[in-house]
Amino acid sequence: MSAIAVIGLGSMGDGMAKSCLRAGLTVHGFDAMAEREEAFLATGGAPGSLAEVAPGLDAVLVVVLNAAQTEDLLFGPEGIVPHLKKGVVVISSATVPPRFARAMEARSNAAGISYLDAPISGGSLKAASGELTVLASGTPEAFAAAAPVLDAVAETVFPMGDAAGAGSVMKAVNQLLAGVHVAAMGEALTFGMTQGIAPEMFLDVISKCAGTSWALENRAPHVVAGDYAPRSQIDIWPKDLGIVLSAAAEAGFEAPIAAAALAQFQRAVELGLGAEDDAAIAKVYARAVELTLPGEGE
Amino acid sequence: MSAIAVIGLGSMGDGMAKSCLRAGLTVHGFDAMAEREEAFLATGGAPGSLAEVAPGLDAVLVVVLNAAQTEDLLFGPEGIVPHLKKGVVVISSATVPPRFARAMEARSNAAGISYLDAPISGGSLKAASGELTVLASGTPEAFAAAAPVLDAVAETVFPMGDAAGAGSVMKAVNQLLAGVHVAAMGEALTFGMTQGIAPEMFLDVISKCAGTSWALENRAPHVVAGDYAPRSQIDIWPKDLGIVLSAAAEAGFEAPIAAAALAQFQRAVELGLGAEDDAAIAKVYARAVELTLPGEGE
Repeated sequence: MSAIAVIGLGSMGDGMAKSCLRAGLTVHGFDAMAEREEAFLATGGAPGSLAEVAPGLDAVLVVVLNAAQTEDLLFGPEGIVPHLKKGVVVISSATVPPRFARAMEARSNAAGISYLDAPISGGSLKAASGELTVLASGTPEAFAAAAPVLDAVAETVFPMGDAAGAGSVMKAVNQLLAGVHVAAMGEALTFGMTQGIAPEMFLDVISKCAGTSWALENRAPHVVAGDYAPRSQIDIWPKDLGIVLSAAAEAGFEAPIAAAALAQFQRAVELGLGAEDDAAIAKVYARAVELTLPGEGE
Repeated sequence: MSAIAVIGLGSMGDGMAKSCLRAGLTVHGFDAMAEREEAFLATGGAPGSLAEVAPGLDAVLVVVLNAAQTEDLLFGPEGIVPHLKKGVVVISSATVPPRFARAMEARSNAAGISYLDAPISGGSLKAASGELTVLASGTPEAFAAAAPVLDAVAETVFPMGDAAGAGSVMKAVNQLLAGVHVAAMGEALTFGMTQGIAPEMFLDVISKCAGTSWALENRAPHVVAGDYAPRSQIDIWPKDLGIVLSAAAEAGFEAPIAAAALAQFQRAVELGLGAEDDAAIAKVYARAVELTLPGEGE
């Protein structure tokens, strides 16, 4: 039976960790927030500090927020890589710049550790049900060592290539679209309100029309319900669209629609909405013209 | 058996006219292009000039390009409204400004004619199969008189209200999203190419991820195939997004993402792509960084 560590027990990591438990793996869960670790332990997680369990692990799944956290966990002062057995795989699922993924692979390999560049798509419900899409690239050895974890967390694994970077590139492409679609949902829903269309009517009709998207069907219900408990936070979008626009700029490529969406998410952060569900992008538009969204001003 | 005229036999109107034929209606088809009229006659259309058949019609379905053509057909020098029986319904399916729809309803009603504001969504394949979504508003009399036609062309009719304008408002909301999504598809597909992702891989992966949309699943295959035969033309977007941004401006509402998409479609028109399928928006991005799309430069 494989023993793994899942580092980062937010809405995505917690669901992935529990999917690994259901698959029969021994799963140690770690998070900067102690209450998340305790909650995971209570659902069947294996005990022990990261330093204690590291030498016995077969795989490490990293589901933290960004590149800086990933690097610190792997190679920082208390980084785990030096304590792992040779041949163990690090599966890195945070959205990071492609060039960062390549650098992490090189440093891991130099330490005798495999590295799978493995960003994820599908949202927290799919994470909980073990039905994520994984955009994975890495050596055949990295894929082989990661197989028990991938089997547990993914419905579909897209093999993007035999070196790190390719998975993160595809994730950036996906985030360009998803970010634009979430922001456009907010723009269209509130535009409709200025024309007399209630949010519920908007959702009922548009989800059956050519204007629909995964993001709209997934996020517009949050606006209709006035529920901004974060499944996916506003705060991830300045980071992820920033990765997109940096990679684009390096290629001399202009992405004006992604840039327009990024500006709206930055405005949302300035309004103090960073920790809310990203459906709260609708509030940026609503406040500009003094519309009252469902659940507000009651 | 009802007798109707379908005016405008482009990709949407022709499919709707044939759906009416299949439903057993007597259908006279008219278009500014004689070959379209002849082709429709050959598939079972009823003969006669518009002036000849007007007094015998029970409904007129108008599926032309824009407001100016709609107004000319209804009330121009050779307009049909004065020649219709009282109580006949005009079903207007072009995308037009909501205030124009209201004006057409008022003028039709003053002439004893019902008016259904009935924009459509779903694309040419759904038009051909009689499975469109219709966003309809108008009086109960207009809905009742239009029922045989709506039954023939629509899978879903959303009743948006009892006066013209509401249907066109919802269509504008839909077009905001669909236009943004088509342009974002082109932006993301070509961004991916700058990072080493082939268009076919883009389509295979993103259509299974959170970045997907109806527009992407419908239009990205055209780019992959290098096939820009127009199912929906670039040229409709400056018009439709113009309607959106005019209505938004009147409400003091800023729609920066729609504005960014509009700018890209305007650039496409400037590049001479107006008559191509709207998937050709990808060419705007590709030419800016000298990418070769499938089917180009061979």
